Amino acid sequence: MNSFFAEIFERERERYLAEWQELLTIPSVSTDPDHEKDCQRCAEWLHEHLRQMGLETRLLPTPSKPVVYAEYRGKPERPTVLFYGHYDVQPVDPIAAWTSPPFSPTWRSGRLYARGAQDNKGQLFYVLKAAEALMRTGKLRPTLKIVLEGEEESGSSGISAMLTQWKETLRADVLLVTDVGMARDGRPAITMGLRGLVQLTVRLDGPTHDLHSGSHGGIAPNPALAMARLLATLHAPDGRITVEGFYDTVREPTAKERDLMQAVPFDPAEYEAQTGVAPLAGESGLNPVERVGFRPTIEVNGIRAGYGGPGVKTIIPASAVAKLTARLVPDQDPEKSLGLIISHLLRNTPKGLRLSFPEKGSSGPGFRLDPDSPPIATTLAVLEKVTGKKPAAIWEGGSIPIVGALRMVSGAEPLLVGFGQDADRVHAPDESFSLEQFRLGFLFTAELLTAI
Amino acid sequence: MNSFFAEIFERERERYLAEWQELLTIPSVSTDPDHEKDCQRCAEWLHEHLRQMGLETRLLPTPSKPVVYAEYRGKPERPTVLFYGHYDVQPVDPIAAWTSPPFSPTWRSGRLYARGAQDNKGQLFYVLKAAEALMRTGKLRPTLKIVLEGEEESGSSGISAMLTQWKETLRADVLLVTDVGMARDGRPAITMGLRGLVQLTVRLDGPTHDLHSGSHGGIAPNPALAMARLLATLHAPDGRITVEGFYDTVREPTAKERDLMQAVPFDPAEYEAQTGVAPLAGESGLNPVERVGFRPTIEVNGIRAGYGGPGVKTIIPASAVAKLTARLVPDQDPEKSLGLIISHLLRNTPKGLRLSFPEKGSSGPGFRLDPDSPPIATTLAVLEKVTGKKPAAIWEGGSIPIVGALRMVSGAEPLLVGFGQDADRVHAPDESFSLEQFRLGFLFTAELLTAI
Repeated sequence: MNSFFAEIFERERERYLAEWQELLTIPSVSTDPDHEKDCQRCAEWLHEHLRQMGLETRLLPTPSKPVVYAEYRGKPERPTVLFYGHYDVQPVDPIAAWTSPPFSPTWRSGRLYARGAQDNKGQLFYVLKAAEALMRTGKLRPTLKIVLEGEEESGSSGISAMLTQWKETLRADVLLVTDVGMARDGRPAITMGLRGLVQLTVRLDGPTHDLHSGSHGGIAPNPALAMARLLATLHAPDGRITVEGFYDTVREPTAKERDLMQAVPFDPAEYEAQTGVAPLAGESGLNPVERVGFRPTIEVNGIRAGYGGPGVKTIIPASAVAKLTARLVPDQDPEKSLGLIISHLLRNTPKGLRLSFPEKGSSGPGFRLDPDSPPIATTLAVLEKVTGKKPAAIWEGGSIPIVGALRMVSGAEPLLVGFGQDADRVHAPDESFSLEQFRLGFLFTAELLTAI
Repeated sequence: MNSFFAEIFERERERYLAEWQELLTIPSVSTDPDHEKDCQRCAEWLHEHLRQMGLETRLLPTPSKPVVYAEYRGKPERPTVLFYGHYDVQPVDPIAAWTSPPFSPTWRSGRLYARGAQDNKGQLFYVLKAAEALMRTGKLRPTLKIVLEGEEESGSSGISAMLTQWKETLRADVLLVTDVGMARDGRPAITMGLRGLVQLTVRLDGPTHDLHSGSHGGIAPNPALAMARLLATLHAPDGRITVEGFYDTVREPTAKERDLMQAVPFDPAEYEAQTGVAPLAGESGLNPVERVGFRPTIEVNGIRAGYGGPGVKTIIPASAVAKLTARLVPDQDPEKSLGLIISHLLRNTPKGLRLSFPEKGSSGPGFRLDPDSPPIATTLAVLEKVTGKKPAAIWEGGSIPIVGALRMVSGAEPLLVGFGQDADRVHAPDESFSLEQFRLGFLFTAELLTAI
């Protein structure tokens, strides 16, 4: 059925994989200033790669990392597809937990292990190769615009600052994003919603220097203990967020959404086998799919305070830092939600300590698509054709902040289909992506660009 | 009044200081394997010095660093005094912060600057010189046993391993320790109590690897957040420890102890100026001196979980670790108290996560002396005679674990009097000890050994 593109894939596979592996050797960690040059190099690599593919390309400067832009002029009567991806990757720590070095791509049991193997270098590269296959066979009919940014993992500030200036360039009908995953049960899926994201670094300062915990224990306020107590105020014992007003604009799922949601079974035992934990977090009384797709969260991404090494260090530490992120559902305003969290923390500041917020920001709101729109129907048909399976509708708990912004500026309808799976371990040590996932992504993109 | 010893001190001063300075040139840093030979050399120097003073000496091997032992046989009807000191010193880093090199003792404004100038080479050397002065003038009547270990700053493991074998050798009536300080207001002081110490490393394991906080937020239990909530259960909002049974054996101060306690004023403004925090921790309703001297604490010495660097890392971390220490008052059994804390944490383990205790231990119980006992009365009288000031009774919040162990094995009553002050900066760069402090220590020891 999809033998035309499948044959191309088989024929070109070794080249595709070699190119993809080369891309993965570039340590484009956007949060780390030490990797500034690597990010630049990665952008240049992609820019040159797209140029050689035969697209019109530009390396667009931003206030921070450059955006790689490429365009193919299709038939005027066909729609314009804007593809968004990102060439930056997450940090690699804890580095010791990697089986093979994160920037030395290594195949094991049909999977390619490397930082970015899936997120997003794997999922963007199969799109590039599908476009290349269509171009080489004279079959690419829609206009294709490709935008690859370098700061998705660190707030997308560069591209965000430029979007209004690029409004004309980015105008499109469909916004294709593959930085998403399949359904939990392994079925191909279309992502019907994403959550928004705000971030906050919380710092508690106490003594001017670490104090002796004997001479000062029971006198000096302890920032480590106080941070624990402060973070503990964010949730009730039943998992509900206690921040005043936080749920005010949260909408329940519709009846249709509940039906689609229930069509993808959630297996607690399988979840535990995959992650090592039972699905017990969040608000009690709601099922896990609703909790992750339709409810906001506040997570602690990390805590640093005092001594963490072996043995004993008898100190009252001078300070404590916690990193927080909140996932927001569509009708929660990011700035307002962040303000509510900050007010809550200020109201609960432990006595005698100084609370500050060295970093804070919003990566934009979430969104939720209409399950009845025509592009959604086309996509479901292509997915079924390529995979031979009934595709699922999923509401992702994650955030791709720039999708909301690109949707606004381009006027395009988002179409989120990707082939990520939990086993890929994105953001963690031993990230990987399988050859089969890469191949499905290639076939889906080729068929979608043909059908659209 | 104390002119006899004061005259000796004036006459011998230059020699005393020259010898003390020579001792301070030996970099006997016990935690640093590079200084292994220096520690050995320091022990040999003291052994030879004590031999030349005319004591019977032995260099006692231990599984790690040797213990210097010396003995003077006094009159049988007089008590036996066991003096404990340590010849090892703290590391010197940050070395750049020293005004003069740490092992080139340098006088500035009446203070001798060097690592160990006070802790403990200064405070042990005035004891040796006082004993020498008494011996040379035929006035040393008690039996004097001197024990100088080389691992006080790194856990006292060598001496601890040998104590039961040395039981007969160490038998004594009074255990003199000068590794302590004066009162906060600068008055001479006798330390009436120390707290005991137990330590516990608490670990919460959740997911097998860091999870994406978007895809898993609201489903996967978060060890960082859960650790915060777990630590927050240890205290009530009023600062009271909530661990069941923890206070069962805690004794209130007696009326006499309260009188002595109140004789040393605690100035909150001065405390805040020194430490940067107001003295607001511990149980509300009790004054700071009582909280630190007569009440137990549970402190969080550090927390490590997830990401702590700049920017955002959107993870649910796989695990979280907290380092806890508890300071215990005398009637709290360390093992039992540790067990109560562990039971409390197990009872409060957040659902879905695995709690473990990779490290736990006790450094021994605290003690509290009877203010009415004859040796205390003698000591207070000697202190007043030597300094011309009304001495203070202080209850230290810290722990000197070896004191508890030596007390048990020797059967002796501890007598803790030293002349340390905050200005000495022990454990920090520019450690120093003044000539006046050294002289007071010498006079006090000489008079005490005469009066006892």
